[in-house]
Amino acid sequence: MMPGIPGETLEGVFTMKNLTDAIRIKSFIRDRHCRRAAILGAGYIAMEMSEALKRIGLQTTIVYRGKLPVKKWDGEFSKVVLEEITRNGVEFIPGRKPMAIDKGREGSLQLVTDGGVIETDVILMGLGVTPEVDLAKSVGCAIGEGTGAVQVDFTQKTSRDGIWSAGDCCEVFHRVSRRWTSIPLGDIANKQGRIAGSNIGGRPARFEGAVGATAFRVFDLEVAACGLSEKEALDSGFNPESTLVWGTSTARSMGGPRLGLKIVADRSTGKLLGAQAAGRGGAVRKIDVLSACLWNGFDLGELGYLDLAYAPPFGGAWDLIHIAAQELLREIASS
Amino acid sequence: MMPGIPGETLEGVFTMKNLTDAIRIKSFIRDRHCRRAAILGAGYIAMEMSEALKRIGLQTTIVYRGKLPVKKWDGEFSKVVLEEITRNGVEFIPGRKPMAIDKGREGSLQLVTDGGVIETDVILMGLGVTPEVDLAKSVGCAIGEGTGAVQVDFTQKTSRDGIWSAGDCCEVFHRVSRRWTSIPLGDIANKQGRIAGSNIGGRPARFEGAVGATAFRVFDLEVAACGLSEKEALDSGFNPESTLVWGTSTARSMGGPRLGLKIVADRSTGKLLGAQAAGRGGAVRKIDVLSACLWNGFDLGELGYLDLAYAPPFGGAWDLIHIAAQELLREIASS
Repeated sequence: MMPGIPGETLEGVFTMKNLTDAIRIKSFIRDRHCRRAAILGAGYIAMEMSEALKRIGLQTTIVYRGKLPVKKWDGEFSKVVLEEITRNGVEFIPGRKPMAIDKGREGSLQLVTDGGVIETDVILMGLGVTPEVDLAKSVGCAIGEGTGAVQVDFTQKTSRDGIWSAGDCCEVFHRVSRRWTSIPLGDIANKQGRIAGSNIGGRPARFEGAVGATAFRVFDLEVAACGLSEKEALDSGFNPESTLVWGTSTARSMGGPRLGLKIVADRSTGKLLGAQAAGRGGAVRKIDVLSACLWNGFDLGELGYLDLAYAPPFGGAWDLIHIAAQELLREIASS
Repeated sequence: MMPGIPGETLEGVFTMKNLTDAIRIKSFIRDRHCRRAAILGAGYIAMEMSEALKRIGLQTTIVYRGKLPVKKWDGEFSKVVLEEITRNGVEFIPGRKPMAIDKGREGSLQLVTDGGVIETDVILMGLGVTPEVDLAKSVGCAIGEGTGAVQVDFTQKTSRDGIWSAGDCCEVFHRVSRRWTSIPLGDIANKQGRIAGSNIGGRPARFEGAVGATAFRVFDLEVAACGLSEKEALDSGFNPESTLVWGTSTARSMGGPRLGLKIVADRSTGKLLGAQAAGRGGAVRKIDVLSACLWNGFDLGELGYLDLAYAPPFGGAWDLIHIAAQELLREIASS
């Protein structure tokens, strides 16, 4: 997505969609001897880009309309992400709306915001993506109202016989919300492509959907999530309650790094609805386990006693997952 | 367990059961200025002890009747474990049966085997454990025939009203084999203790059992398993088929360390039965996911498309779990 501001098509302003973009950005930075970079947006792509730019020596600034990065995650985890990027020398400027991009002196760029002008050499747009559906529309395939993505069934077939769709452009069934959503991620695109191909080739196959598992690394921090956030749970008609616990990624006696885990469950049914985690190691492991739990639905009560591979280098005898589940069960029982 | 050989009660010969044992062993090594240690057995406790002894500077030798360490795991993984300990300077002597322990010169010990005498200063027994059931027997609690452990129900109650049991001494329900087994692990003991306490205190609770999730670290290697091995699956009446795949713990483009994953499934039902993994990072994560999958049963077909948190630092778009599941499904289909 582009911000829709004057100057956004100037040379030195890039979106990040494919390998060609990456090559163009790297060439530009090298050929123009860029020293400074500005990133618009603060999602996980913006976080990953800030690390990449910092690692090749650029003075890197993230400019964001909101207060904290990665708004998909709980504010506590967003703060941990903010600490990680600033600790690594990335500048984060919150509460700024981009107004225009101008040419500066000697080939530089000026990012004009509602709070002042930021001088830079290259600007990257990390504002999210919208599904590319022009081709599908042109041949009459139905587009999802809420998602803007191509409607498909469980075989990846579109509303038009003989036309299949796979990847970021099409919808995916969310097994927790039980709704068709847009989840533009590479692993899902791969799975859909294989299912579509199998059906096109004459071997029936179904794509059983996703649970919204996602992860990114920024510098030494792992950040991951699955299922629904409280807001998404509310929007999907659930009655969510959540808890956020902090522990370590090893047994406490071994003094591993801090690891935070938030889980969301439905008050009415006691079912797990979603989870988020952040820490220097261990976060993705927790989310992968909880993704598997979400696949077929899982009770909080069971989650509190789930059998996981225990050894002190990998966690406590009571895993953070157990602790969070039991804590949330108590909260729901006492409320 | 002790080997039942002459001299096994000599000073300097230790079992490893609790914290007191650890303190006694450390004191003995320090006070006697031990330079050499021998470990009998080659299970995961023996592996962990070999690392601990090597790290404090002792010349460490593992003496084992069989050919390869950690026989619970596939031979391919046992070989990786053997490489890891020998790379770190631990000597592994296979195919040797201990016959006796004698006093040597100047306070040293002689471990007499069927293949020669090993001179050492301290000997650790890592031959496994048997449930301690004397107290339970003395009050008339039933003992499991196959397990030798105290029989309990899902509330941890023994066969005698008013007596509960928890921990390594009692049985645990295995959710995959659907049988009562003995799994002497700290996390299971903790869970059973809490359930027993809750029931004793008047709040009914059930312990829903385990799936055999287990892990250990030796030097830089993670080794883990869950569910049933092929042999255990056969013994439990299943019709097992397995596959073992190698990949990396990150996306291949990032060149992470090698990671091996073996999965076992039932030919008749296509259900996952068990898994094993080994690698320098990532093995426990795979096993934790698969433990969650085993909890309520999981089809291989679904496992091949399970939604996991994908990002290149944490694996490929097709996770090793997907690759193994699809591979095994093809094997079963073509056989």
